[in-house]
Amino acid sequence: MISSIDELIQKMVSGDKRALGKIITLMEEDSSSSAYIVSKIYPLTGKAYILGITGPPGSGKSSIVDKLVSCYRNENLKVGVIAIDPTSPFTGGAILGDRIRMRSHYTDKNVFIRSMATRGTLGGLSRATSDSVKALDAFGNDVIIIETVGAGQVEVDIVKVADTVVVVSVPDMGDTIQKLKAGIMEIGNIFAVNKADIDGAEKCILEIKMMLELSETKNGWVPPIVKTFGDRDNGANELYEAIKNHHKYLLESGRQEKKKIARGKADLIYILQNLFIKKFYEAINEEELEELGKKIASREKDPYTIIEELIPRLKKFL
Amino acid sequence: MISSIDELIQKMVSGDKRALGKIITLMEEDSSSSAYIVSKIYPLTGKAYILGITGPPGSGKSSIVDKLVSCYRNENLKVGVIAIDPTSPFTGGAILGDRIRMRSHYTDKNVFIRSMATRGTLGGLSRATSDSVKALDAFGNDVIIIETVGAGQVEVDIVKVADTVVVVSVPDMGDTIQKLKAGIMEIGNIFAVNKADIDGAEKCILEIKMMLELSETKNGWVPPIVKTFGDRDNGANELYEAIKNHHKYLLESGRQEKKKIARGKADLIYILQNLFIKKFYEAINEEELEELGKKIASREKDPYTIIEELIPRLKKFL
Repeated sequence: MISSIDELIQKMVSGDKRALGKIITLMEEDSSSSAYIVSKIYPLTGKAYILGITGPPGSGKSSIVDKLVSCYRNENLKVGVIAIDPTSPFTGGAILGDRIRMRSHYTDKNVFIRSMATRGTLGGLSRATSDSVKALDAFGNDVIIIETVGAGQVEVDIVKVADTVVVVSVPDMGDTIQKLKAGIMEIGNIFAVNKADIDGAEKCILEIKMMLELSETKNGWVPPIVKTFGDRDNGANELYEAIKNHHKYLLESGRQEKKKIARGKADLIYILQNLFIKKFYEAINEEELEELGKKIASREKDPYTIIEELIPRLKKFL
Repeated sequence: MISSIDELIQKMVSGDKRALGKIITLMEEDSSSSAYIVSKIYPLTGKAYILGITGPPGSGKSSIVDKLVSCYRNENLKVGVIAIDPTSPFTGGAILGDRIRMRSHYTDKNVFIRSMATRGTLGGLSRATSDSVKALDAFGNDVIIIETVGAGQVEVDIVKVADTVVVVSVPDMGDTIQKLKAGIMEIGNIFAVNKADIDGAEKCILEIKMMLELSETKNGWVPPIVKTFGDRDNGANELYEAIKNHHKYLLESGRQEKKKIARGKADLIYILQNLFIKKFYEAINEEELEELGKKIASREKDPYTIIEELIPRLKKFL
């Protein structure tokens, strides 16, 4: 098994898109294979620029991603896209038109597009996403775009790995601020108001402005609010420029370096935690764990006492 | 600090609602205090029946919870409610009328209602929720109701701790199945179609039926679909009966026991993991961690090599 994974990694690193796809599937389905792969490719990672695009379903994130991919391709950059959005054309939620529009990118060998399941991912979606970002990075992508519905905490966690976060909203979605509530406003570096030619766009912009004025300034970066226009091309370039400005700001202010260090620390703790759990399952077999579960269920013993008794054995396995 | 927490626990256990409120605030704001509290109250937990109510915003979950609380109070049972829903009247999202309606329960000393913030919770919302459920349990509640928007993975995780899960949907929400997608269908033991007097109710019921027929049967329990009627009282009793039936089924089939064992195992692993992270921070100070982060960021070293070097030191701290 390991040797075939090694082969897959070899192929992926040498630029085989299909091998990359297989690796991401493995990462979704099997957290221990995923951990192995990350350990092998880690030295090759840390080069890509990571862009997060988030916003409610139906806000037109995918159109925006589609246009941004074209912008990056115009500069001959290699792009990877991970879409985590049940309404995205990538993940199969949208109308046929969108799929056809995307097809040009699918056949481009310098564009890799992958949807991630929002459930059934072993070890959690944010684990699988962050591992997959590492695979896309090791594959040699210059830019990695993560598209996600800005709904829950997991989504926020996923998008936190990004260097730049674009929050997309649309005027006709009722109370904008309400929709963008769950921690998303704070993580936005750029705000895109999509379908900005429909009624209520100015009100939406005003709301975002007010919200931004209420929140703290972020190390000298004032998040711009950019109008985009759904399927039409105007606006996409302005957004692209805003993204490039933010990237430049990150590099010049030293924020990029800080983000990388924070990611390094997070990786360290995360990998260590996984290792520990793995060792735990080596030290305690399934039957014994079941027995311990029974003792806890009946409150015959509490987990704290059990852990105290287990520690000496766990130490031997570390 | 510890002594004042001990005092708070003492008060809470003796039935002081304000002390319980303070303890839950602590649990939200400080994961290490929370871990301490859980360790102290653990032997008192495991008695309450836990009911999860989940469904999209605007589906009328809160009205349903309100009515169920009345049903339980009629049987003189002590009820705790945790609401995690930005549109819930508990958490301040809804219209004044709802708040007034709820007021009767607020003044009932045998009903404890608490909203949880959907963000800013240290160590994550599901951590804080599961700890708070333990506090509500140790407080002596017979029933604990968790009300949550069935949106993301975190929500699903939160509701998984429940003995019985009621999934609420409403006819006018477009594609029902689409809305209920993210793993929620699979965890539903009972389906409530709310506002069942409006157009499309039968279609909604049919969709849920079809979906249920496609999924595997769950150890002999066939999830019933119950009509409820928003603010009006009819339907609530039927739902209440369905919930009681499921509880009875859990007890008689031995599923309740299995659920308790699974919760015991999950608690054990979870507490152990937290302990390990705590020990890690004792062994490695902030400056050293920053240095390690820098080495990883520059790919001078990879986290796997660093961990190998750290293990001997970590062992001493375990």
